[in-house]
Amino acid sequence: MSHFADRLSAAVGRCGNPVLVGLDPRWEQLPALLREGIDPGSLQQRSVAYTRFCCGVIDVVAPLVSGVKPQAAFFEELGPAGMQALWDVIAYARKRGLLVVLDGKRNDIGTTAAAYAAAYLGADEASPWGADALTVSPYLGDDSLTPFVDVAKQRGAGIFVLVKTSNPGGKTFQDLMTGDRPLYEHVAALVESQSGQTLGACGYGTVGAVVGATYPEQLRKLRALMPRTWLLVPGFGAQGGSAADVAGAFDERGMGAIVNNSRGIIFAHARPEYRDRFGPSRWQQAVEAATREMVDQLRADTPAGRLGA
Amino acid sequence: MSHFADRLSAAVGRCGNPVLVGLDPRWEQLPALLREGIDPGSLQQRSVAYTRFCCGVIDVVAPLVSGVKPQAAFFEELGPAGMQALWDVIAYARKRGLLVVLDGKRNDIGTTAAAYAAAYLGADEASPWGADALTVSPYLGDDSLTPFVDVAKQRGAGIFVLVKTSNPGGKTFQDLMTGDRPLYEHVAALVESQSGQTLGACGYGTVGAVVGATYPEQLRKLRALMPRTWLLVPGFGAQGGSAADVAGAFDERGMGAIVNNSRGIIFAHARPEYRDRFGPSRWQQAVEAATREMVDQLRADTPAGRLGA
Repeated sequence: MSHFADRLSAAVGRCGNPVLVGLDPRWEQLPALLREGIDPGSLQQRSVAYTRFCCGVIDVVAPLVSGVKPQAAFFEELGPAGMQALWDVIAYARKRGLLVVLDGKRNDIGTTAAAYAAAYLGADEASPWGADALTVSPYLGDDSLTPFVDVAKQRGAGIFVLVKTSNPGGKTFQDLMTGDRPLYEHVAALVESQSGQTLGACGYGTVGAVVGATYPEQLRKLRALMPRTWLLVPGFGAQGGSAADVAGAFDERGMGAIVNNSRGIIFAHARPEYRDRFGPSRWQQAVEAATREMVDQLRADTPAGRLGA
Repeated sequence: MSHFADRLSAAVGRCGNPVLVGLDPRWEQLPALLREGIDPGSLQQRSVAYTRFCCGVIDVVAPLVSGVKPQAAFFEELGPAGMQALWDVIAYARKRGLLVVLDGKRNDIGTTAAAYAAAYLGADEASPWGADALTVSPYLGDDSLTPFVDVAKQRGAGIFVLVKTSNPGGKTFQDLMTGDRPLYEHVAALVESQSGQTLGACGYGTVGAVVGATYPEQLRKLRALMPRTWLLVPGFGAQGGSAADVAGAFDERGMGAIVNNSRGIIFAHARPEYRDRFGPSRWQQAVEAATREMVDQLRADTPAGRLGA
């Protein structure tokens, strides 16, 4: 299995855009068509609807983008049946050639962290879930990240460590000043160090960072502080981040960042500009239009325009 | 559903000890008897072995202690079949009258945090997993904790927020000085504030804190800083913490802290002092002996001796 950062670079270059489509299924927002005939009180039936919905999104976006980011929480919310749906969705996305970044924000200490890493990372049969990458929380410190890095290297997988999150409360602890810099820059320094020790041919490492789109200046600074680190940028679209806001996340080739959009793409059928145009039954066309719109915005207003198309 | 802290206080008082038994199944360490006839290459079969093992532990400890702490990672490591095993183990523990603290160290932002909370918290039918409490990571900040607190209050459940973890690398970020105090004391202040807003009749709140047993002085100080916060103390036994080390976690009545032991109890059959005494087939007697030993140690060397027996 080749290096994760190299696979990501190749996929982004091939697609000519840095769009990552977030798979955040929520029952109330599914297209009406997919809720028909389903008993909302049955977690099993809702899980089936989630799988159909996510696979329907994947069918649309697979020719357009490099990867998807399933949000574990929404599947976990449906109990064991939801976890089976998550497994099915990951497998289907991989089958369609997409990279899968599982958003689980996991972490623990020692052998427990190793269990999470073994569970989720890697595309080969050794991985029970088969994700290409996993989001990881840093609070437990350097030794909690080591097992993830080790397994990621072995399996050609990656991790994205939370550095600066897009929510208003992200500042509570992340922005606390320690010495001459905020906590999140300390986390960034550790991430960059680990990236530097796991470089692929593309110049980026196995260890990436999550940096929200809602803080453009911090994003630009973090790009400079972490020159060998892939950035996963959430917060575009529904959370308020624009293409101009994320421009600072890229390197001069238009590489080095993937920008996630969940609700703005997968629930595009409910956005005013698409609702009337496509109606409830053509929800997949709305997904396609919203994906293409985001691709165009990022190519127009960020260095991602320098990627081959 | 009554207040979580009140239920926890009542359970600890009834048992007369603060022992929490960690359910961390690991294939290689299961009693030989439970591995017989199981194909280790089958995640499905291993999941069945995990369920049998954990339920076997529960049968032994249910009359002795107030609760168990399943570690999600080890179940997630077995894919969807492992998640079904986790569900079965939680349900069985509750059926046997034990409180269930699921160790998942989850968190995310906004409605995603709400999905995790809805997934795991609460004993009623609204909860797909049915845990009494969940461990939660604080890095995402104050607004990421709010949905957990809200759901916990609604459902009579609780959360335990990571404050100071027991691993050596816990110091990487947690011990960074911000102003005149380390980061973990900022987290402690937020937790205590939230506990104070969710008090039960017992004088403790819905929001607890995870504080490792491996830092006795910090444990004592955090007890003082968080007088209304239940502490979940991991790191006893295999990780090096002794009864004397955790003495500072309790209030003067012997309440306010639950002390977790995973490997030292559930894999007691492999500990030198029990291996010869019980042999491989009487592994449940080893679990019972190790549990009673820990109860006796805590009652002898900590304020927990003041609990009714």
